[in-house]
Amino acid sequence: MNTLDLAVIPGDGIGQEVVPEGLKVLRAALEGTGRDLVTTNYNLGASRWHETGETLTDADLASLKCHDALLLGAVGDPSVPSGVLERGLLLKLRFAFEHYVNLRPTTLFPHVDSPLANPGAVDFVVVREGTEGAYVGAGGALREGGVHEVATEVSINTAHGVERVVRYAFDLARKRRKKLTLVHKHNVLVHAGRLWKRIVEEIAPEYSDVEVDYSHIDAMMIYLVQDPSRFDVIVTDNLFGDIITDLAGAISGGIGLAASGNLNPSGEFPSMFEPVHGSAPDIAGKGIANPAATILSVALLLESIGEDDAARRVREAVTEDLANNPDSARSCAEIGDVIAKAVREKG
Amino acid sequence: MNTLDLAVIPGDGIGQEVVPEGLKVLRAALEGTGRDLVTTNYNLGASRWHETGETLTDADLASLKCHDALLLGAVGDPSVPSGVLERGLLLKLRFAFEHYVNLRPTTLFPHVDSPLANPGAVDFVVVREGTEGAYVGAGGALREGGVHEVATEVSINTAHGVERVVRYAFDLARKRRKKLTLVHKHNVLVHAGRLWKRIVEEIAPEYSDVEVDYSHIDAMMIYLVQDPSRFDVIVTDNLFGDIITDLAGAISGGIGLAASGNLNPSGEFPSMFEPVHGSAPDIAGKGIANPAATILSVALLLESIGEDDAARRVREAVTEDLANNPDSARSCAEIGDVIAKAVREKG
Ligand SMILES: CC(C)[C@H](C(=O)O)[C@@H](O)C(=O)O
Ligand SMILES: CC(C)[C@H](C(=O)O)[C@@H](O)C(=O)O
Repeated sequence: MNTLDLAVIPGDGIGQEVVPEGLKVLRAALEGTGRDLVTTNYNLGASRWHETGETLTDADLASLKCHDALLLGAVGDPSVPSGVLERGLLLKLRFAFEHYVNLRPTTLFPHVDSPLANPGAVDFVVVREGTEGAYVGAGGALREGGVHEVATEVSINTAHGVERVVRYAFDLARKRRKKLTLVHKHNVLVHAGRLWKRIVEEIAPEYSDVEVDYSHIDAMMIYLVQDPSRFDVIVTDNLFGDIITDLAGAISGGIGLAASGNLNPSGEFPSMFEPVHGSAPDIAGKGIANPAATILSVALLLESIGEDDAARRVREAVTEDLANNPDSARSCAEIGDVIAKAVREKG
Repeated sequence: MNTLDLAVIPGDGIGQEVVPEGLKVLRAALEGTGRDLVTTNYNLGASRWHETGETLTDADLASLKCHDALLLGAVGDPSVPSGVLERGLLLKLRFAFEHYVNLRPTTLFPHVDSPLANPGAVDFVVVREGTEGAYVGAGGALREGGVHEVATEVSINTAHGVERVVRYAFDLARKRRKKLTLVHKHNVLVHAGRLWKRIVEEIAPEYSDVEVDYSHIDAMMIYLVQDPSRFDVIVTDNLFGDIITDLAGAISGGIGLAASGNLNPSGEFPSMFEPVHGSAPDIAGKGIANPAATILSVALLLESIGEDDAARRVREAVTEDLANNPDSARSCAEIGDVIAKAVREKG
């Protein structure tokens, strides 16, 4: 029997609550596919850091690398200094495993409220570069702490890094509505902007069926609230992608519904699936977190291993559950149960 | 008689249409203040560049420097390569004249439609740093054009530069609802983020009446569409400020209403006032551009020279005009006429 060997990192806060629901649904979805699920739990995040001072050791990395995929809940806690877990754990995983595609679909599901008065049909995917840009950690500080301090952040972008993510985005656009929007700020960030533009223009002729356009990141803010239905696939760098995907999440009913996949499409390293939301310490431990984003991330995981039909069932079950239960006050586990049951019934 | 010696840069596209309306209103507002208006037109922008290949010469700068203030319409045209006018003209002015405060008030005026279903009372000001950050042009490209290209963008932030803009923001908050929000991404951009955070924390005790909070740039996207009324004064860096202010413009009825001042509060150099919108080549020459953002920028100009009462009259006249004429199809000049008349009547 074919096995899915999954590393599970529940992490902090509501990560501990939503991940079990994601697994519940994953198990239900795999039934009848001929695939077995084996999971290994990893204690990573704030509590591990408090206990041991470790964020992610070489041994952790070596061990995680052997799995087929990773499912991560959320990491971060106010008790840990800013940046420690973000850079030492989450970004370290994305970089070490060459997660160069940070895939973030945005769908306004039927019956879900948008803060926009007239959102229209929102259904696009942000392909965010995940291993370069301002996230590389190449900054520094001179005369730190003094009146003459100079602090820098260096965004590093390579033709290699841009090309592979742009190709992925073109391939995805071809499978969807055949429209690709590059987002940058090439009128100010001329060097990085020119590189992104060049690569898109060089690859475009290979995808003559895909329509290509461009928007500055600032103008994007306007389009995303005035007319988000114009977008199909958006490709952009790490920082702009971070910003756009939170706005995308917000206009489509909140990042409580936003899924993401950190993909290494080459297959050299395991991909990692995680909800876009954080650990939400304010509601953690109450069992009221919404597991939808994690469950939708499980759908991305299923797609990444070729289980498209199982992925479709998960997505349909979530869509139906959202439509059936507007504003209902259900526990995290109840939602997981309902969706897992629906996934089984569709099987 | 006291004279306001104004340099006028209509620029490109609708800049040519909105600036005369701004001047019309400025003249009306100055009547009875004992201040005379003297204007000097500067031919800068796409047409000058096409004619002479020049964007902004040392002679232009030396001459502009002698004025009390600058009024700019918009620069940019699709016929000019990206970056040429942005970096060679607009940003060059902001940097040369140490416009370290890029002031962008956001108000949802009564009867103006927001794309948000429940915007609430939107009334905040973004204090965007204008002379540092990713805008300094410190990037470069190695092996440009090839498969091994590496393109960098360096964000440079200094204690000096951050402190002066943060102080301005605290002062402004004190005059308003006494709330200051720092926006950054200090969990990823740790060096620049740490500097901004440190400066805010160091200055805060001097403003113990001002409540300080912090938001990551990505979370800001969510707050701005879910609950924008929570903000009073927002202080942030150049790039994040660029992004936030377009979103702010969009949620408050479009950047057609968004004003800005590029201030040099020390008075060493002239400040520059400009609408946030661009040259809008698609509607240029038709006389249908909305001059409201330019007229509101004139209000900021009036405030910067201490004409607070005149500024108030301009703002009231715009507010009333917006309330009286929802969706009306009036020409740019008609709108200018109506507002100028109202400003006079209030005098
Ligand atoms: C937690 C943080 C480092 C992370 C990011 O900036 O990428 C998060 O905002 C995200 O979008 O996944
Ligand atoms: C035109 C461009 C250089 C400019 C900027 O990025 O500052 C504009 O977007 C703005 O916000 O004034």
